[in-house]
Amino acid sequence: MTNTWLITNVRPHAGPRADGCVDVSIAAGRIAAIGPNLPREPGVTVEDGAGALLLPGFVEGHTHLDKTLWGMDWYRNEVGPKLTDRIENERRYRAESGHDAGAQSLALARAFLQAGTTRLRTHVDIDTDAGLRYLDGVLATRDALRDVLDMQIVAFPQSGVLRRPGTDALLARALQAGADVLGALDPALIDGDPVASLNLSFELAQRYDKPIDIHLHEPGELGAFTLGLLLDRVEALGMQGRVVVSHAFCLGALPEPARDALLERLADLRVALLTTAPSSTPVPPLKACLQRGVTLFGGNDGIRDTWTPYGSPDMLERAMLIAMRYGLRRDDDLALAFDCVSSVAAHACGFSEYGLHQGARADLVLVAADTLAHALVARPPRKLVVAHGRIVARDGVCVEDLIEH
Amino acid sequence: MTNTWLITNVRPHAGPRADGCVDVSIAAGRIAAIGPNLPREPGVTVEDGAGALLLPGFVEGHTHLDKTLWGMDWYRNEVGPKLTDRIENERRYRAESGHDAGAQSLALARAFLQAGTTRLRTHVDIDTDAGLRYLDGVLATRDALRDVLDMQIVAFPQSGVLRRPGTDALLARALQAGADVLGALDPALIDGDPVASLNLSFELAQRYDKPIDIHLHEPGELGAFTLGLLLDRVEALGMQGRVVVSHAFCLGALPEPARDALLERLADLRVALLTTAPSSTPVPPLKACLQRGVTLFGGNDGIRDTWTPYGSPDMLERAMLIAMRYGLRRDDDLALAFDCVSSVAAHACGFSEYGLHQGARADLVLVAADTLAHALVARPPRKLVVAHGRIVARDGVCVEDLIEH
Ligand SMILES: [Zn+2]
Ligand SMILES: [Zn+2]
Repeated sequence: MTNTWLITNVRPHAGPRADGCVDVSIAAGRIAAIGPNLPREPGVTVEDGAGALLLPGFVEGHTHLDKTLWGMDWYRNEVGPKLTDRIENERRYRAESGHDAGAQSLALARAFLQAGTTRLRTHVDIDTDAGLRYLDGVLATRDALRDVLDMQIVAFPQSGVLRRPGTDALLARALQAGADVLGALDPALIDGDPVASLNLSFELAQRYDKPIDIHLHEPGELGAFTLGLLLDRVEALGMQGRVVVSHAFCLGALPEPARDALLERLADLRVALLTTAPSSTPVPPLKACLQRGVTLFGGNDGIRDTWTPYGSPDMLERAMLIAMRYGLRRDDDLALAFDCVSSVAAHACGFSEYGLHQGARADLVLVAADTLAHALVARPPRKLVVAHGRIVARDGVCVEDLIEH
Repeated sequence: MTNTWLITNVRPHAGPRADGCVDVSIAAGRIAAIGPNLPREPGVTVEDGAGALLLPGFVEGHTHLDKTLWGMDWYRNEVGPKLTDRIENERRYRAESGHDAGAQSLALARAFLQAGTTRLRTHVDIDTDAGLRYLDGVLATRDALRDVLDMQIVAFPQSGVLRRPGTDALLARALQAGADVLGALDPALIDGDPVASLNLSFELAQRYDKPIDIHLHEPGELGAFTLGLLLDRVEALGMQGRVVVSHAFCLGALPEPARDALLERLADLRVALLTTAPSSTPVPPLKACLQRGVTLFGGNDGIRDTWTPYGSPDMLERAMLIAMRYGLRRDDDLALAFDCVSSVAAHACGFSEYGLHQGARADLVLVAADTLAHALVARPPRKLVVAHGRIVARDGVCVEDLIEH
């Protein structure tokens, strides 16, 4: 593929040209032009889109590449029901199995690319047993795929920051070693001391000038209490626009006045919410978030690991699950679910130059579908995936030289 | 394919042989033998299973073949949010579009077979505008596929039995014309008179000696009230074991004592529940049903029609959605979700000779998966689908002579 090339005859999923076919000219990794009947310079490679639907590269807002068993023999899940059962089971499994976070994160990251995801945020366990070993593996994957996949790494204390002494120092080292975001977990239910836990997390984030992405599973009134403490700190420390609350189940199970008061603070402080749209748990209300200007975006969480057999590197599937979870049926509503794994996720994570406009980075997905809603429910293999202006997958399969170019 | 043939080298998904490979001998449409190293008679065709997982043919417990737009151009859903919006929108669409219930039901039924479903229950609209036209189309599909697909037809009054005079007479004609089951819909919220509506339905069912399968969307206390009235009639009229309540959302949103009292009556009267496991609506509690001996099975409801863009003829996907809806993660729990679209559904609908044992009808699915749970979450194309002892699909594609043999 030359540096400048052309995709012809594709249908953008939205916008003024959604009804007709356009061409996309790509130069130096960017969309140089998009519109009908672009000129075909002599010698320029032309890829016939054959009327496929054109989507922007997808964004995975929350996964755990370092934990996945993707492509390995099936793991028989016999884990107990509590969060701590799952944490301890995983710790034991990892210690005993020789699970390789580097090889596994690379396998899953390739599967993401193959299905059209070109930007992702992954949490990586930072642990007093494992140290930075999982981070090292994921950093190697990020480096191997740096020309085609944007990866944000969250340094994630899977056992909390207070319970295992030395965790904070490891997190600090992780942030210095290349993690982009500080993670955190259930300050009350895991750490047992929401004020001390949050204070420590915010102190670390400030010291290394990093954003925060916290797992907040705490339900109902407890979650609301912790969320309030978190928002106080965002406000006091001037971290507006730099904090994500993942899961936030509590916002799905509060009386509306209490919920709406929190939504207003979230909007004011530009704190974004991430949902996996689990079907068995309360979730933050999508339409109320949209009405109040709260950013809500989507992700898988873990994919086929010791925690869960579910999850898929196909973000169209996640968009479908989000749409189903919120009871969306209309085409315009399904587009909102797609936004959660595309433009809104890019905005929330701070991935720049995103979209299908001239000048945006050329991260493109072609799929044989009539419409965006059709793509979500049918999820056919991707005809073409372009990342940073390069073809990385064709007909659902990664090109050979993805890494060694 | 000869009348007697052999599938070698497959792994049953459960049972004493789940760890090793077996062969399956098929004769006269039945499993003649299943076990390791079956004798290979000279001249008998042998199909190498190549270590694939062996599952029984799937069962779709509730769909609407006559409504589907499967394979057609994408239908842009701009429908209002109320049940009556959807009913009226569909009525208008069908009147104006020339939608062909015969061709569409055949297209979707073939897609079901291709994905491994060999028995299904479909509701078919019986309507004062359309008369028996949709039923005629679905009857033609049933006839065309009679050698490979068992289809139960529910005569379904999509607008209720009381609101449009003449509906009861049409339902009677439908039951005489080949419908197996009497359908019904929300006696309070659609018909506006739960006692009169239920009395009419039970009178019809008794007159034609047919079972009942009622759509009960009515929520919370109202649904519980209607369900109580229904159970009174099952008891008084001796219809134990012959009634299915589809959806039964109310059982997902009652205080536990009230819910459990209803579950006990359901168990006593052998009234089964059908769920699609919608992620945005309360659902009957799976584990409480199992504990109390209430039969709960699964289905899609509509698939890509004017009501919903969702749904899939792949019952492994439905099993996955059921498992997710109930928060199931362990392999043994995922097997319960698979039961909902296999053995339990067969039992609830009254499909006989079901299973992987000697003497059962040879309805078999081979899939490249390590385990049952793996099959649910990965859902690869079916390597082989056998229906009534015949190969009907291979590598995810129906064989050519499915109808004309
Ligand atoms: Zn997570
Ligand atoms: Zn239905």
